[in-house]
Amino acid sequence: MFETDRTPKRVGVVGLGLIGGSFAKAYADAGIEVFAADIDERAMNAAMAEETVAGPLDEATIPTCELLILAVYPQAIIEWVRSHEQFISPSTLVIDCGSVKRSVCPVCFSIAERRGFTFIGGHPMAGLQYSGYRHARADLYAGQPMVLVPPEIYDPDIILWAEEALSPAAFGSFSITTAAKHDQIIAYTSQLAHVVSSAFIKSPTAQKHRGFSAGSYKDLTRVAELNADMWTELFMDNADNLTEEIGVVITELGRYRDALSRGDEAELHALLEQGSIAKRKADGRYSDAREGGVR
Amino acid sequence: MFETDRTPKRVGVVGLGLIGGSFAKAYADAGIEVFAADIDERAMNAAMAEETVAGPLDEATIPTCELLILAVYPQAIIEWVRSHEQFISPSTLVIDCGSVKRSVCPVCFSIAERRGFTFIGGHPMAGLQYSGYRHARADLYAGQPMVLVPPEIYDPDIILWAEEALSPAAFGSFSITTAAKHDQIIAYTSQLAHVVSSAFIKSPTAQKHRGFSAGSYKDLTRVAELNADMWTELFMDNADNLTEEIGVVITELGRYRDALSRGDEAELHALLEQGSIAKRKADGRYSDAREGGVR
Repeated sequence: MFETDRTPKRVGVVGLGLIGGSFAKAYADAGIEVFAADIDERAMNAAMAEETVAGPLDEATIPTCELLILAVYPQAIIEWVRSHEQFISPSTLVIDCGSVKRSVCPVCFSIAERRGFTFIGGHPMAGLQYSGYRHARADLYAGQPMVLVPPEIYDPDIILWAEEALSPAAFGSFSITTAAKHDQIIAYTSQLAHVVSSAFIKSPTAQKHRGFSAGSYKDLTRVAELNADMWTELFMDNADNLTEEIGVVITELGRYRDALSRGDEAELHALLEQGSIAKRKADGRYSDAREGGVR
Repeated sequence: MFETDRTPKRVGVVGLGLIGGSFAKAYADAGIEVFAADIDERAMNAAMAEETVAGPLDEATIPTCELLILAVYPQAIIEWVRSHEQFISPSTLVIDCGSVKRSVCPVCFSIAERRGFTFIGGHPMAGLQYSGYRHARADLYAGQPMVLVPPEIYDPDIILWAEEALSPAAFGSFSITTAAKHDQIIAYTSQLAHVVSSAFIKSPTAQKHRGFSAGSYKDLTRVAELNADMWTELFMDNADNLTEEIGVVITELGRYRDALSRGDEAELHALLEQGSIAKRKADGRYSDAREGGVR
């Protein structure tokens, strides 16, 4: 089955926080009818008052949505699918936004298979240091990457379907991966970044920073204030990978400390140079040639 | 001696890197004549070609500058002052930009006292992940904080003098402190931030980040590529404070790792909550009241 345009006419969004709220606004801006569910009545009232959301996502509206976006915590995603699976149409695409995938995808794949609808794991690579509907933005995903985790055996067309269904969010690129690989990489790019920021801010010197700080302090501490409930659940669901990554950064930090406390200037220089090379490689800018031009 | 306007007519800049080059551009934009010295002829040629710099800062021009800005590495600051002290007029204000102060200020204070000119330690709280004249910007300092380290015993008027002399850079605020206090705080706000970023990028997972990363990864790794020569010198000059700060962040990171590997969800939650509180306190936003409003 090929269609030229599988942008949905009607979308259901579960969870009107920063992530779900931003999807709701992007779809509403595209003229698509959005139904939503949130345990927080205030978020629902705000979204309906501003006409982002047309009405509640419930037994009556779930079967009519061609796309369901699940943007709540991982365990709540599973609970919502379990308690609403009977209302989901076999022609519906369901995409979750959980930022861990091993604990969510296999359960949802098997429910979807049994019920006949299509489930694809998703993780939009966008976020802010703020949470909640009031920070949601229609353009939060514009130009950003989206990770998709299809079932182990899948029709490649469902990837195209997902890309077309998500087109109102205007993602910049899509990465297809497995739940295991996703969780391993995200333990570093997102989770470790939050742990390091949280640890960094705990130095007593942080409280004296004003007038003595600029961009690097600001960057390192941007995400130090976080939603502890959400991140605790995400970290616990990915404890093996995250424990490993924290261990790596502790080991690396120890090398700088040891070089400094030994007064080993050559080693310290080498450690910094290796960091520069790793950064250039990670950004795809590495070459052995030294930089030329006016420094 | 009070003057209503002590903005200089003629400024000397030693070092046309990012920091000195940005001062040179800001002063040139304000119509002030800038003389400069740099061991890199290409930077001098570029600055003169674009008419930021009027000519070389040398035996002939040094005595005519009302303000000298020293923007080279700490040891080079001391060497420049030692080898040019005889040309500096007693009516000149000399401000360095070294990002460590204990190794620079006492030496320069004593030369200044002997020669009769005025020396104030300085550290502009601005920078980029790039170095060199080609990245210099006239507005690099606009709205940013500037740290001033006056001699132990000083006429408070020299602070006003410095503020007026630096007015073309348009700093947002000035902090007055001692060399010891400066070095202790900067070990955290700037140096530790660079060490952590350099260590963070060394996880093998960093090389797989593309398509799986967003703002938090970008922030944590922004300064990982750095000028190893410069930072090695800065770190060695502040090894005691920096060793201490690296130790603190290693200890803090260990707490998260231990909570995770024990599966201690309550402890992990508490650690994250404490980080959020520390961040709010550091930003001056802390109150015991819980946030209200739509989440």
